[in-house]
Amino acid sequence: MKKEIGITASRDSDFSEWYLQSVIKAGLADYAPAKGFIVLRPYGYEIWEIIKGILDEKLKNLGHQNGFLPTLIPESLLSKEQDHFAGFMPEVFWVTKAGDNDLAEKLAIRPTSETLAYSMFAKWISSHRDLPLKLNFWNSALRAEIKSTKPFIRNSEFLWQEGHTAHTTEHEADIEVRMILDVYKDLVENYLSIPTMSGYKSEKEKFVGAKYTTCLESLMMDGKSLQMATSHQLGQNFAKPFEIKYLGKDMMEHFVWQTSWGISWRLIGAIIMTHGDDKGLIIPPRIAPIQVVIVPIYKDVNKELVVTAARRLKDILGLDGIRAHLDDRDEYTSGWKFNYWETKGVPLRINLGPRDVENNQLELVRRDTKEKDIVASADAIAEVKSLLSNIQINLFDQAVKRLEEKTNVTSDLNEAKILLETKTGFISTFWCGNRKCEEKIKDETSADIRLIPFEGQDKLEGKLCICCGLSAKSHVILGRAY
Amino acid sequence: MKKEIGITASRDSDFSEWYLQSVIKAGLADYAPAKGFIVLRPYGYEIWEIIKGILDEKLKNLGHQNGFLPTLIPESLLSKEQDHFAGFMPEVFWVTKAGDNDLAEKLAIRPTSETLAYSMFAKWISSHRDLPLKLNFWNSALRAEIKSTKPFIRNSEFLWQEGHTAHTTEHEADIEVRMILDVYKDLVENYLSIPTMSGYKSEKEKFVGAKYTTCLESLMMDGKSLQMATSHQLGQNFAKPFEIKYLGKDMMEHFVWQTSWGISWRLIGAIIMTHGDDKGLIIPPRIAPIQVVIVPIYKDVNKELVVTAARRLKDILGLDGIRAHLDDRDEYTSGWKFNYWETKGVPLRINLGPRDVENNQLELVRRDTKEKDIVASADAIAEVKSLLSNIQINLFDQAVKRLEEKTNVTSDLNEAKILLETKTGFISTFWCGNRKCEEKIKDETSADIRLIPFEGQDKLEGKLCICCGLSAKSHVILGRAY
Repeated sequence: MKKEIGITASRDSDFSEWYLQSVIKAGLADYAPAKGFIVLRPYGYEIWEIIKGILDEKLKNLGHQNGFLPTLIPESLLSKEQDHFAGFMPEVFWVTKAGDNDLAEKLAIRPTSETLAYSMFAKWISSHRDLPLKLNFWNSALRAEIKSTKPFIRNSEFLWQEGHTAHTTEHEADIEVRMILDVYKDLVENYLSIPTMSGYKSEKEKFVGAKYTTCLESLMMDGKSLQMATSHQLGQNFAKPFEIKYLGKDMMEHFVWQTSWGISWRLIGAIIMTHGDDKGLIIPPRIAPIQVVIVPIYKDVNKELVVTAARRLKDILGLDGIRAHLDDRDEYTSGWKFNYWETKGVPLRINLGPRDVENNQLELVRRDTKEKDIVASADAIAEVKSLLSNIQINLFDQAVKRLEEKTNVTSDLNEAKILLETKTGFISTFWCGNRKCEEKIKDETSADIRLIPFEGQDKLEGKLCICCGLSAKSHVILGRAY
Repeated sequence: MKKEIGITASRDSDFSEWYLQSVIKAGLADYAPAKGFIVLRPYGYEIWEIIKGILDEKLKNLGHQNGFLPTLIPESLLSKEQDHFAGFMPEVFWVTKAGDNDLAEKLAIRPTSETLAYSMFAKWISSHRDLPLKLNFWNSALRAEIKSTKPFIRNSEFLWQEGHTAHTTEHEADIEVRMILDVYKDLVENYLSIPTMSGYKSEKEKFVGAKYTTCLESLMMDGKSLQMATSHQLGQNFAKPFEIKYLGKDMMEHFVWQTSWGISWRLIGAIIMTHGDDKGLIIPPRIAPIQVVIVPIYKDVNKELVVTAARRLKDILGLDGIRAHLDDRDEYTSGWKFNYWETKGVPLRINLGPRDVENNQLELVRRDTKEKDIVASADAIAEVKSLLSNIQINLFDQAVKRLEEKTNVTSDLNEAKILLETKTGFISTFWCGNRKCEEKIKDETSADIRLIPFEGQDKLEGKLCICCGLSAKSHVILGRAY
C-alpha cells in the first residue's frame, strides 16, 4: 500500500507526470495489458457511477430511455454515411476472425453507434406516433489511438454515454440539442465545479456527419482546453441513407430529424486537471465517493473509546445522507492515513482523538484550503454539511477566477501567439469564417478555434478577423487543446 | 404500433416461435444487423437495470466493489492458462487490424475476463493486507455462436456481471463460492419467482480453468433445463501462471486462492420461459418495470373526469413506491391497450371508467390468473400491494409445482429416456462418477448431468449408477439443456 501515496512530481515543473501520478496513486485507474487501454479501479469507477447516476436521472426525467446496442457493426453498415465512415475509418478496430475462421464481412468495434442505432430506428419508426424517439446508451467506444495516450483523456477505449434521438421537425431537434447541452452544463458546473464555455464548433471541427455541433469547453490548470461534451444536430444526414421515415398526420412520408450527444469519463480527467494540487486529487463533494473520512487517533489504552465514538459519528453522518468512511485500520499510522486520503482527494477529514471524545468535539480539516476547525460534536452534521457546500463553491470560484485570468482578448495574431506561449489559456477574438484563416491560425499559434460562443455574436460590428483583417463573421475562442 | 401486439404462436404447438414472438412483440429486444447479435430495447433494458440494481446492492453489502476492464485482451495473455484458452478459443472474435494497419499481436474481444483481471491482480496484490480482493464487473462478453441463436439464451454478445476474488486460503475461497451462489439463489427465487436446484457441475461440465464449478439450474416450461448462474472455485490454477502472490503474516510468499462467478441477461429469457402464457409475458412484480398499468376508459364527454382521477391514482401509487404507469393515449382504444399491456406482461391492470370514479372504486385485473376485483378507491394502495405480493408468490408456486411434476426418479436408463421424451423435465438418479458413463448417458438420452445436487449426497448406500450399474458415487440430476 505504501507505494500508493506520495506524489513526487509538481504541477509547475511537470504537469503531465503530475497528472499521471495523481491518477495512478489515487487508485483511480491503471494501465491495462493492451497498449493504450486502461483499467478502472473501484475508486475511479465509483466517481463514474456517481456522475452516471446524476446524469441518468436527469435524462430519464426529460423522457429519455436507456437501451443496449451490440459492440460490433458490419462494415457495410458503418460505411452507409460517407463522411462519417471516412472520419472514423483510421481509428476503427476490425474483427476479421472468429475462432480459426475468417469472417465473410469484417466487423467494426463501435467507435460510436450512430449507424447501428439508426438501422434500428428505421425498423422502429413508421408513424408520427413513434416520435420523438429518445434513446440513451451507457457503453464504451473504441478508437485506436496512435498518438500518445493519457488516462481518461485519450485512450483506445473509453466509457461514455451516447444519446440518439429522432424528431418530426428540425426545430424540435434544435431544441433537443440545446437542452442536452444545458443538462451537461449543469452537470459539469454544479456537480463537478468546473466552469464551461458553450457554443458551436466550426465546420472543420464539427462531428463527421453532423449538420452542426455544439460543445462545452473548459480550461485546465495548465492553460490547455478540454472538450467536455458535445451535442450534435444531425439534420437528415443519416435519416436519408438509413431511410428513417414516418407517416405524418398529413398522411405523407417524411424523413426524421436527428440528434446525438455524449459525455465520457474524460470528465474525471477534467476534475483532476481543474482542482488538483501537488498532493494529488481534490474531488468536489457532490461527486466524491467519500465526502468525509474519519481518522481516529488513539493508543492501545484508549482505542476502544475513540473507535467507538468514530463509528457512531460515521453512522450519524451516514443517516443524514453524507458519504462518510471510517479508516480504522490498525496497521497504518494516522500520519500515513492523512497523506493517503489527501492523495485520494477526499474533500473533508475528521480527526478524532481521545481528548476530542472527552470534550465532545472533533477536528475538521478541509482538503482544498487545509484549514482546520474544532467544532462541538453536537454540531457535527451541520458543520460538515456547511463545509462540504463551501468546498463545492470554493472549487468552482477558484476555477472561474483562473478562467477569467487566462482568457485574453486580442485582435492581433502575433500577440495571440505570445499570449498563448507566456500566459497560456484562451484567446477571445474574431474570425471571418474562412477555413483558410482557421488553418493559418492553427499553423501559426498551435491553437484551434475551440468554439464559437453562443454569447457575443451580436456585437460583431466593426470587428475584424484576427488572421486576414476582413470583416468578422464570428466571435471565437482560440486555445490549445488536449 | 399495431404490429407489436398479438402473439400468433401457442406454447404447446411451437414453443420456440412463441418465445421469439414474446420477446419481440413485448418490445424487449430486436435483432441487430450483425448475425447472432441482439439490441435491447428500453423495456428489456429496464428489466435488466432492475435485476442489476438488486444484485449490485447485495454484492456491495458483502464488500464487493465494481470496476471496469477493457474489451480487448492480447492473445499472449488469453493463452496464459492453457485449459482456459483451449476452451474459449473456438468462440473468440479476433481483432487483427486498426484502421488500415495490421496489428503486431492479435487482440481477443473478451469472452470472459479472468486473464485480464488476474494480470491486474498480480500488480495490485503484494501483501496479506491487500486481501481479500473482491471485484465485480458489469459488462458484456462476446462469444461467436455458430449454432442457432436465441435472444437472451444464446447470442454472440450478452450482458452479464463477472465477479473475481482473491483470498488467502482455500477455505475462504470455498466460502465465497457458496455465499455468492446463495445470493444468486435469493435473486432468482425471491425476485424472479423461479425455483432453482443447486449443486456442483461434473468434471466434464465445469468451467475451463476451474477447480470446481457450482451452479443453479432451473426447469423451463417446455421441460428443458437452463443454467441460471455459476460460481467457480479456481483454486490456484490462475494464481500460478499469473504469479499472484502475497507476503503473509508469516513473512513467506504464498499464491492466492481465487473465485469467479456470473449471471447474465439469460435470466430475462428464463422469466419468459417460466411464467409466460399464450398472450405473452408475465413479469414477476418485484422486477417489473411497470407493476401496475392504469387504463382510463372514457368518452369525450367524461374524459377529463376519468383522466384526472387516473392521474391522481398514479401519483398516489407512485408516492408509495409502486411503479405505476398511466396509459392515457387518445389514439388507441381500451381494448387495444388491454392486449398491449398483457403482451408486455404487466402483472396488474387497473381499469377506471366514469362509473368507477363516481362510485369511488376501481377494477383490478391480475395478469396471471385474469381474476378481476372491484375495490374501493380508499383501499387502492393496500389492495394493489397485496395483489402484487400474491402474484409474486403464485408465480413461484406454479413453477415449483411444475418442477416437482416434471422431476422423475428412476434408476433405469431406458425408462429415463422414455420419461425425457414423454413427460420431459429432470431425471433424479445416481451415477458412478465415470466420464464414460456420463458420455453414454448423453448419447442414449440427449440429456446431460445438469448438476450434482448439494442435497442427497449422504444417501448413496445401495444406490447404483443408472448407466453401468456399479456403486453410485453421486446423486445427479439429468436434463436436456438449452
